Parts: sequence; structure tokens; C-alpha cells
Amino acid sequence: MTDLSSMLTKCQTRSNKTLSDWLDNLQFPEQRLIKAMKHGVLLGGKRVRPFLVYATGSMFGASEPDLDTPAAAVECIHAYSLIHDDLPAMDDDALRRGQPTCHVAFDEATAILAGDALQTLAFTILSEGPLSVDAEPHRIAMVRELAAASGASGMCLGQALDLAAEGKSVDLNTLELIHNNKTGALIKCAVRIGAYAAGDRGIACLPELDRFADAIGLAFQVQDDILDITGDTATLGKPQGSDVAAEKSTYPALLGLDGAKQKADELYKEGLHALQSIQYNTTQLEVFARYIIERNS
Amino acid sequence: MTDLSSMLTKCQTRSNKTLSDWLDNLQFPEQRLIKAMKHGVLLGGKRVRPFLVYATGSMFGASEPDLDTPAAAVECIHAYSLIHDDLPAMDDDALRRGQPTCHVAFDEATAILAGDALQTLAFTILSEGPLSVDAEPHRIAMVRELAAASGASGMCLGQALDLAAEGKSVDLNTLELIHNNKTGALIKCAVRIGAYAAGDRGIACLPELDRFADAIGLAFQVQDDILDITGDTATLGKPQGSDVAAEKSTYPALLGLDGAKQKADELYKEGLHALQSIQYNTTQLEVFARYIIERNS
Repeated sequence: MTDLSSMLTKCQTRSNKTLSDWLDNLQFPEQRLIKAMKHGVLLGGKRVRPFLVYATGSMFGASEPDLDTPAAAVECIHAYSLIHDDLPAMDDDALRRGQPTCHVAFDEATAILAGDALQTLAFTILSEGPLSVDAEPHRIAMVRELAAASGASGMCLGQALDLAAEGKSVDLNTLELIHNNKTGALIKCAVRIGAYAAGDRGIACLPELDRFADAIGLAFQVQDDILDITGDTATLGKPQGSDVAAEKSTYPALLGLDGAKQKADELYKEGLHALQSIQYNTTQLEVFARYIIERNS
Repeated sequence: MTDLSSMLTKCQTRSNKTLSDWLDNLQFPEQRLIKAMKHGVLLGGKRVRPFLVYATGSMFGASEPDLDTPAAAVECIHAYSLIHDDLPAMDDDALRRGQPTCHVAFDEATAILAGDALQTLAFTILSEGPLSVDAEPHRIAMVRELAAASGASGMCLGQALDLAAEGKSVDLNTLELIHNNKTGALIKCAVRIGAYAAGDRGIACLPELDRFADAIGLAFQVQDDILDITGDTATLGKPQGSDVAAEKSTYPALLGLDGAKQKADELYKEGLHALQSIQYNTTQLEVFARYIIERNS
């Protein structure tokens, strides 16, 4: 059986190395902006999205060095979104991954800029970073995928819908729309650009991978909502109960805690089912899908 | 003689059309986020950067439709930077282009998100939008250029250096470093991707174009600093004297008003000189360079 925790650690190490190399090679690595970018992107984090890039790409034969570029790019987008989501005008969170959030550790202006520059860095990495010969012809498609997942038809839209839903009770369809955009789009993108980075073999399996990613992306969010109720602050690295405090609609609020757990389990099975028609070794993605609904942080 | 004002108007019209088409084609065009993006990118603005894309590209034979994609992309980056620069945590400006700034017209969270999503839209447009057959092989290079000019080694760095310099007196070299990054990098990028969009003929002239763009990019900022003293609020569309109020280092502060005017004039001549070795019709760029140092808004 694949040891997920050692796989996750390996992905963390690889993507931290890639990201710190990029940041250290900037013209002014000691500038406060760059320090804030490092704070946002290098301190902690499970590296779920890099993991998905590595697991998907390697399934189709891509080597780990061939996957460093897309893995680092997608993590930059994720890190920037966390910095901006934590800002006082947004979720106003002081704690993230057990550390002071960027605007607390630095200041608000620097945090806004660090998020902005991390978004840009994602596109620098993806347009300049090394790729395999098989992946090179698909570089521009990968840029397109990353932008589509991140902007006003993906992650930013999800965050806007989420803000609009605060303090209101929304129905299950709206909640799903929010999460499919807010977190699902980038998770799906990680899987997709992992496939692109492996070239034609990966690209041929995009439809099945999409079904897998849609299911586990939503499962990830359902489990996040569950953990906001059942988890504890120390393990989560952020305050337990913050969704309830912010009057956010959640799956447990709409379905009850047991209903939410059942929903996560159904999505997990849907994800596994999608993988069955892929003729490569899908073990890592299967183990990851189970982790998604069993994790406690 | 080229009528600059009608050229600028034509560029405004073309890039507004391109940008509003992209925004209207998003999945939820009526969403508050998209409205805030439109507010930020469509209301007013001289369209200096699109103009430079059109003027440079057409000099080498690119048609206007071939230049719509890079012109709109670079304007998205500019518009996002203005939205974020105006935020309370940054310059805290209530007025921009004679209109309420984005966080005043909407709210701070929406303004942060609208800026974020406009940055992403720039990369969507540049990676997906139509390009000529000559430009297509250079699409990824254009993405690379735009990212390099916008992030932690370009515009964002400049804004960070500018924030760090607030309330301090900096020397001329530091001021130049700030402005070369804060505004110069994107102006140069507009010229460069205009050349890329014309294919190999444009690319062959990049060294001369760089010298032109470096000179007029800095001239643009020197003139901005001059206008902050000599202009009036109604013409500027933003409060006159705001640099002095924010204790910003400016060229007039370091060189005196006459010294600053002389500096702008020298840069103008440097720009013209760089164009002399280009064997195409550089009239539009020449006229534009003069406008840079003669404009009153």
C-alpha cells in the first residue's frame, strides 16, 4: 500500500524547494515583499494540490522533476488566495497553518501585494519553468487551464459567491456552486495540469480525471465543513468553529452532521468509480481520495 | 501628422470592446464581482498601454484585430494594479479617473477580488485570445513577458519599494528604481508584446524598442510627478497634490520643478533617438512620446 504521509512529505519537500528557488532568484530576495511571499507560500500547508499534480502526472510516466513546474505554479495560486482570503476585509483571520497570517506578520498593504505577486509568480513559473519534451507543446494549454481555474469563472468567482452568501441561508445547489468554484476548480486544475505535464497519455484520460477531481474536490470541502465542527483548533491550525462564527452555510448545517458524512462518503465512492476506467496505476489517487474524507486537519 | 487624440480614442474603443466582450462572456456577468471588474477596467482611462501595443505592432504590419488580445491583456494588469493601489491599506484614494474608486463604489472585499480576477483575466486573454499566425508561435513568450513585468521583479516590486519609501527622502537612483518597476516595466511590456504580436519583424527590433520604452516610461512618471504639482484635480481626475500629502519622493522634490521638466525633456529626446535606427514608420511612437511630456492629465 502507498504510504500517503511519506508521499505528501515528499511533495511538500519538492514543491518547497522549487518555490524557494524561484523566490531566492528574484532580483531583491531580501525585500519585504519577497519575505511576505515566502511567509505565505513556504510556511506549512499540506500541499494537496502539488500532491495531485505529482500523483496524476507520475501515473502516466512523468518523472518528478517534470512535474515540479506545474506543482509549484498551482501552489502559488493557492497560497495567494489564502493570503487574500485572510485579509481583514475578507475573512479577517489571524491564524493560518498555525502561524500568524500574512497581514498580521507583515502588514495589510504588503499582504495584498504579496498575494498579487504570488499570483503573477504562478504564471512566470508555468511559462518559464522546465517541462518535459512531451509536455512542452502543451505549455500554453496549461497556462490557460490555470487561469481559467483561478479567475472570475473559477476560484475568484467562488470566493465572491461565498462572500455574497455570508449571513444568508443558501440551498444545496448554491453551496455546491460556491465550493465547485472556490476550491473545486483549482483542485481539478491540479489534476488536469498533472495530466498535461505527462503529455498525450495523460491528456487522453482527462474526462475520467475530471470526474474524479469533481468528486474529491467537493468531498474535500464537505470534510472541511465537518472538521470545522468536529476538529480542534490546535490540529486544524486555524480556529475551530470559524464557519459558524462567520454565519457561513455549510454541509453539516444543510444536511446535519451525519448527512454531511454520508455525502462525503458518496463523493469518495464516485471518485473511485471514475478511476476504474483508467488503465494506469491509480493507487496513489485512490489512497488520496480516502485521506480526503478521513483527515482530521 | 498623426492625430494622436483620434488614435487614442480608437485604441480606447477597441480595447474597451475587447474587454467588455470577455467580461460579458463570463458565466455570471451580472455577479457583483464582474460588475466591479467592469467598473475597474472600463470606466475611463487614457489607454496608454493599449495604445503602445497598437502603435508598436501596426508599425511592423500587424493589423488592429491582431493586436486586440495583447492590448486588452496589458490593460487588465494595469486596471487591477490601480484597484489594489487605491485600497485603504495602500494609497487610500477615493477618486480615480473622475469616478469613485472600486472599493468606494463596491466594497473592499469585492475590490480586492476584482483586482485579483482582472490579473487572472489578463492571462486568460493572452493565452486564449485570437492572435495572428505570425504571433502564435510567440504566445508563450508574451505570457512570460507579461508575468515578468507584473510581479515581484516588476510592477509589484515597484509598488513595494514605493510603499517602503513613503515618508522617507530617497535619492534619485532609488526613485528611478521605483518607477522603472512600478510603471516602467508594464509600459515597456506593452511595447514588447506589441512587437511580439507582429512576429519576427517586430522581435528583431526589441533592443531599440526597449531603449525607447525605458526612456518614455520614466518620462511618463516624471510628468506625472510634475502634474501632481501643476495640474488641477478636475483635469487629473484625481486629487492634485496627493503625492505631497502622502509624503512621496518625486522628481520635482529632488530636482526642483524646472529640473524635473528638463529631465522629462531629456528622456523624450532619448526616446526619439532610440527610434531613429528602426527602419519602419515610427511616427505614432514619436507623437506619443511628445504627448507623454506635454499632457496635462
